[in-house]
Amino acid sequence: MRDLQPIFLVQGFLLTTLGLAMALPALIDFADQAVDDPFMSLAAQESWIGFAVSAMLTLFVGMSLLASAWGQGGQLTRKQAFLLTTVSWVVLVAFAALPFVFSSIHLNYTDAFFEAMSGLTTTGSTIITDLERASRGIKMWRSLLQWLGGIGIIVMAIAVLPMLQVGGMQLFRLESSDTSEKILPRATQIAGSITALYFALTAICAGAYWAAGMNLFDSLAHAMTTIATGGFSTHDLSIGYFESPPVEVIAIVFMIVGSLPFALYIHAVRGNPLPLLRDSQVLCFFGIVATAIGLLTLYQLSTSEIANGEALRSSAFNAVSIITGTGYASTDYSAWGPFAIFAFFAMMFIGGCAGSTSCGIKIFRFQIIYGAVKVQVSRLMHPHGIFKISYNGEPVSEKVVDSVASFFFLFFASFAILSVLLATMVDDPLTAFSAAGTALANVGPGLGSVGPADNFFHLSDGAKWLLSLGMLLGRLELFTVLVLFSPTFWRI
Amino acid sequence: MRDLQPIFLVQGFLLTTLGLAMALPALIDFADQAVDDPFMSLAAQESWIGFAVSAMLTLFVGMSLLASAWGQGGQLTRKQAFLLTTVSWVVLVAFAALPFVFSSIHLNYTDAFFEAMSGLTTTGSTIITDLERASRGIKMWRSLLQWLGGIGIIVMAIAVLPMLQVGGMQLFRLESSDTSEKILPRATQIAGSITALYFALTAICAGAYWAAGMNLFDSLAHAMTTIATGGFSTHDLSIGYFESPPVEVIAIVFMIVGSLPFALYIHAVRGNPLPLLRDSQVLCFFGIVATAIGLLTLYQLSTSEIANGEALRSSAFNAVSIITGTGYASTDYSAWGPFAIFAFFAMMFIGGCAGSTSCGIKIFRFQIIYGAVKVQVSRLMHPHGIFKISYNGEPVSEKVVDSVASFFFLFFASFAILSVLLATMVDDPLTAFSAAGTALANVGPGLGSVGPADNFFHLSDGAKWLLSLGMLLGRLELFTVLVLFSPTFWRI
Repeated sequence: MRDLQPIFLVQGFLLTTLGLAMALPALIDFADQAVDDPFMSLAAQESWIGFAVSAMLTLFVGMSLLASAWGQGGQLTRKQAFLLTTVSWVVLVAFAALPFVFSSIHLNYTDAFFEAMSGLTTTGSTIITDLERASRGIKMWRSLLQWLGGIGIIVMAIAVLPMLQVGGMQLFRLESSDTSEKILPRATQIAGSITALYFALTAICAGAYWAAGMNLFDSLAHAMTTIATGGFSTHDLSIGYFESPPVEVIAIVFMIVGSLPFALYIHAVRGNPLPLLRDSQVLCFFGIVATAIGLLTLYQLSTSEIANGEALRSSAFNAVSIITGTGYASTDYSAWGPFAIFAFFAMMFIGGCAGSTSCGIKIFRFQIIYGAVKVQVSRLMHPHGIFKISYNGEPVSEKVVDSVASFFFLFFASFAILSVLLATMVDDPLTAFSAAGTALANVGPGLGSVGPADNFFHLSDGAKWLLSLGMLLGRLELFTVLVLFSPTFWRI
Repeated sequence: MRDLQPIFLVQGFLLTTLGLAMALPALIDFADQAVDDPFMSLAAQESWIGFAVSAMLTLFVGMSLLASAWGQGGQLTRKQAFLLTTVSWVVLVAFAALPFVFSSIHLNYTDAFFEAMSGLTTTGSTIITDLERASRGIKMWRSLLQWLGGIGIIVMAIAVLPMLQVGGMQLFRLESSDTSEKILPRATQIAGSITALYFALTAICAGAYWAAGMNLFDSLAHAMTTIATGGFSTHDLSIGYFESPPVEVIAIVFMIVGSLPFALYIHAVRGNPLPLLRDSQVLCFFGIVATAIGLLTLYQLSTSEIANGEALRSSAFNAVSIITGTGYASTDYSAWGPFAIFAFFAMMFIGGCAGSTSCGIKIFRFQIIYGAVKVQVSRLMHPHGIFKISYNGEPVSEKVVDSVASFFFLFFASFAILSVLLATMVDDPLTAFSAAGTALANVGPGLGSVGPADNFFHLSDGAKWLLSLGMLLGRLELFTVLVLFSPTFWRI
């Protein structure tokens, strides 16, 4: 464990990238000094300087690390790979928070860290109460964080987690080798094609939003957070601001695009769409989404005077937004009634497919645990029978089933502990419950006083740090972080 | 499957026993006709006739079944054993509900079925709003149901479930054979010593209550529901009615006695207390109870002006009552604050030890799944290492771990489905959530409008049937019931 050079090298690379990314919002705010509104002009002036300062700080640290570790890169051990993954996210969030502190909105560091964590983990919970008065640079930075987080997650899910065998992710291993030596070279190789695809999808989504009537800035900012299933918007009213059915349909389509396994898109682009169309995870995802939309539509129609089309539209948008863990809101669905509250609470945990930008428990884990329960029932009747769990037509090893089962237990245990701790810090149980859930599942809005019509600003500092930890745990599939707390991890 | 004679035989035996048990409340009410209070005298008159009618009906059906199937008893197949277990509980509840319909309180059949299910499953949720005006026969019948349910559960947990290998219960198999041929003879043999012990413990508990100042009737009625961790009381204010610290201490002791593995008591009585004192499930149970009491005491002291001793006493009583799934209340703990609400909600699911009268998920399952998570973490660091989960010093087979993991998933899936369905029938989410939990875990009181200071009377008929199903599922460890819904179960 003593040779931390490879870890420094990666941090240096990531921080330098982050620092360079800060140039985009800085440029936008530099240009926005010229706007007519004197308040916004001043905000832009303050903010571009804030971004420039943050960028310099980040680049200084990043490049120092790069310089100190350059050429030292050896091979990563398994333990180093775990350490590297967790440390990278924490370090990136710590620096990504700086512009929120130095720019015109002047958050304190707790709030800034929460907002940056919510961004990079593509959660989408926010503590900014008046987004309309923030500079466009700030809005772009929030979108950019989710977009960068999104691509980071896909690469991690395809190249890193399967090798580390976290929570059943070994199912998605690309080759039979499970040594961690090849993590970095493979990540680089895969990152290439995935990034190109990610760029292309974002551009198509932005074009569609623009064609539906958004201005160029909003369409780009929303495309970034749609494809990343992040959910940050440039308006306090979220997507509801646009009051546009076409915009909602585009959002639905691209939130779903962001929730399917990106590796299968590569096959599709290369002329073989069958793996995507026949993937059992993808089919199950569509089944769940269709069921949720159907039930919510029926519920709305049976409990209120809403028109058929409007019920379908609001159900479809909000169900897809929550299942995929995006977290855009078009209406305050927590006012639909108790069944809707439960449905949204339950949907929060489902998530999209593994290997996408989405979050939550993920479809394949439900498929495997459902298979395990079916095997149990068969075994009750025939105790000496041999029963196998299969996934996507292939038998699943006992180790994968164990991994997935442990993941479920750990997820609900973390949820329970986080809820109880939050209950000592907030006023009502529903807020504590749903804030814990929305953080762990990286969704965004909760219920109660952190519902789709509210935000997280009013929580105590302790609650914000706890929720930041929850978002990190959820994003890194729990085990990646928790393994660092195992006493044997730190033995040489 | 076609030869259902053994099932008829057992139903006949059980119903005859139940019918004979109705004689006790009938006699009490017959004598109570002589009381001075004209209202109570009339209630007693009406009730003893109700009990007599119910007893005749039950005995008629029971003895007819016995007569029709006498001498036909063959060996049970596995499938017959599953069918027998579930059918027995439903049939017993259906007949145990009759006195509630025919006696002076005149419940409709839905309410009566709910009350009887709550009794026999030792849940303790009630729909009777004015217990003080019910005849003593009715009160005794409720206690008797829980007491009979308690002994039924112990025998089932020791003799039936381990053979059926339900949810990891095969860990508690008494011998290496796992054929179901010996279920009935063994059940009879074990039932003997356990029943004697159960009688003795109930008598000791009743004596203690009596010495602490309860009258003879109350002490007997409460002893029955304490040792069965059931929680029905003869007063609307539950144990709080007595306002007596000694009574609460006795209740705490015997609720704990009711939550430890009864099979180990037999060893202790035969002069070998070591298996009981060293059992890892027992030790873990005490650890959890002590932690819960400590945290709740500290929380009460830090949030209110309560005296130290009073905080400890109310924390100890209510924590033990909920963890063991008894459900007695001494105060309205849902008014202690959000942390307490969460703590009681979480404690509901824990339950006592396998092989006791208590309910919930049970301690050994938490121990095994915790072991599984630890193995996962070790495997992350050393993917080719061999790691074994052990329980009570013995390695646990992969099949048991799978069983337990599936149980957890099924428990939370049932909980989620039950909550969502209830949410369409009640007004607030906390009521739906906690009613589903308290039914599945067989605890008794929930939170919200079914809290310790309220009851279940105001719920709709649909909600009551759903909760009755939940209590049955929880009591029979889910799989025993759900296996009947497997399509392959009914194939010959």
